[in-house]
Amino acid sequence: MVRVLARPFSLGTAARRIQRNIEVRRGRGAVGVDTLKIGVLGTGAVGRAVGGKLMELGHDVVFGTRDVAKTMADTKPDYMGNPPFSVWIKTHPKAKLAPFADAAAHGEALVNATTGAASLKALSLAGERNLADKILIDIANPLDFSKGMPPSLIVCNTDSLGEQIQRAFPKAKVVKTLNTMTNMVMVNPDLVAEGDHDVFVSGNDAGAKAKVTEILRSFGWKRVVDLGDITTARGVEMVVPVWVQLMGTMKTPMFNFKIAR
Amino acid sequence: MVRVLARPFSLGTAARRIQRNIEVRRGRGAVGVDTLKIGVLGTGAVGRAVGGKLMELGHDVVFGTRDVAKTMADTKPDYMGNPPFSVWIKTHPKAKLAPFADAAAHGEALVNATTGAASLKALSLAGERNLADKILIDIANPLDFSKGMPPSLIVCNTDSLGEQIQRAFPKAKVVKTLNTMTNMVMVNPDLVAEGDHDVFVSGNDAGAKAKVTEILRSFGWKRVVDLGDITTARGVEMVVPVWVQLMGTMKTPMFNFKIAR
Repeated sequence: MVRVLARPFSLGTAARRIQRNIEVRRGRGAVGVDTLKIGVLGTGAVGRAVGGKLMELGHDVVFGTRDVAKTMADTKPDYMGNPPFSVWIKTHPKAKLAPFADAAAHGEALVNATTGAASLKALSLAGERNLADKILIDIANPLDFSKGMPPSLIVCNTDSLGEQIQRAFPKAKVVKTLNTMTNMVMVNPDLVAEGDHDVFVSGNDAGAKAKVTEILRSFGWKRVVDLGDITTARGVEMVVPVWVQLMGTMKTPMFNFKIAR
Repeated sequence: MVRVLARPFSLGTAARRIQRNIEVRRGRGAVGVDTLKIGVLGTGAVGRAVGGKLMELGHDVVFGTRDVAKTMADTKPDYMGNPPFSVWIKTHPKAKLAPFADAAAHGEALVNATTGAASLKALSLAGERNLADKILIDIANPLDFSKGMPPSLIVCNTDSLGEQIQRAFPKAKVVKTLNTMTNMVMVNPDLVAEGDHDVFVSGNDAGAKAKVTEILRSFGWKRVVDLGDITTARGVEMVVPVWVQLMGTMKTPMFNFKIAR
């Protein structure tokens, strides 16, 4: 039995605070994963792709943002040409939007889909208490676009964003994953090479990694590689620069790394 | 017409300086690459693998080392259990050994197979004049083992070893390649997934990259990805940490990255 939102946010009620007082039966997603209450922090392309997929699979998703009214008032496409969240939500009527803290409180599991440079601040706004003892799927990349293209990394080599998050929120069960491919491929691996390529998981908690692996399989991932503890987030975050180069060379983001054996 | 060594180094004559006074016809390697005089700087596992393969293909290889007598006097296996060069050379009678500068002077093309941490020093000993206007295939990774395993990178993110070498030797035509897989796979790509995986090239000189690509194809590489100029060495050098993690996870170095499309 899990709690769900009584009055989910939708367009027009975006500024209202979420309520969660009704208990319903726990269901099962389309491909056999127990459905969860999930807080997806971040309303950009990655948050929407992952949050949208989780909703499709029957999970109860609340998107978190810093300022709900501001997010809903934004009517301009982002720098990649993606429509703003306020437009996207019209085609996803089940999507709910709340401040970071409420989305985090809602979630039994959380997704960090914020910009890497802003992740620690966003998670701080979400609230340490709301992250404690929860799986925190960290997809963010610590990219620094401030000096133009290609981006560099804000942290790397002897540390990583995944580790920074784990240190800042020691009770969260951080699992780094899905940061090494474009958002469409994250949730539709079959779009590339019939799904014959790899996704990595890094984290300190074996149970959390097992649950995240189950979620990844429900997305369609056939090959999930457990790299080890959260320090292995260094490696997968450092893969991103060559990914950016390859996107430039190949003129498409529709590819992924496969570990050929 | 190219010059070759009159009295190649072999075991027992290792301390003798090389001579190069006889002209012979330029031949062709086994798979149709024009044979070259090549200086392979470095006598470790990577140098031997690449130099050995180049010799097999008919190229005229001189290995370069800092101190010939010391290299030949070393009779202990390295930390990976590889036999020392003095043992290896017994089974490779065509292999010649010379000081860095002589090996570099010999080469129409050069291979940097030294330890990344020592590459700039080794190339400096090889001599700027002996590198000028030559293709310099840079395989080295700037790994720092001084703080134990896993290694970190000495340079990364906004710079790379490939770029450092290109800046230090602006007349050399630096091509970064082959740094993202183990040495056996470098020269025998078919050992992994029947060769269905990728090798990258980065460099400023299109002609040099084309020649290196030809050499890579002669090694058996089917998929050679030109990432762009030498700044793209950052990306491929930053791939190495996840490679090290994967080797730990998979308990074998016999794998490589494939760009699944």
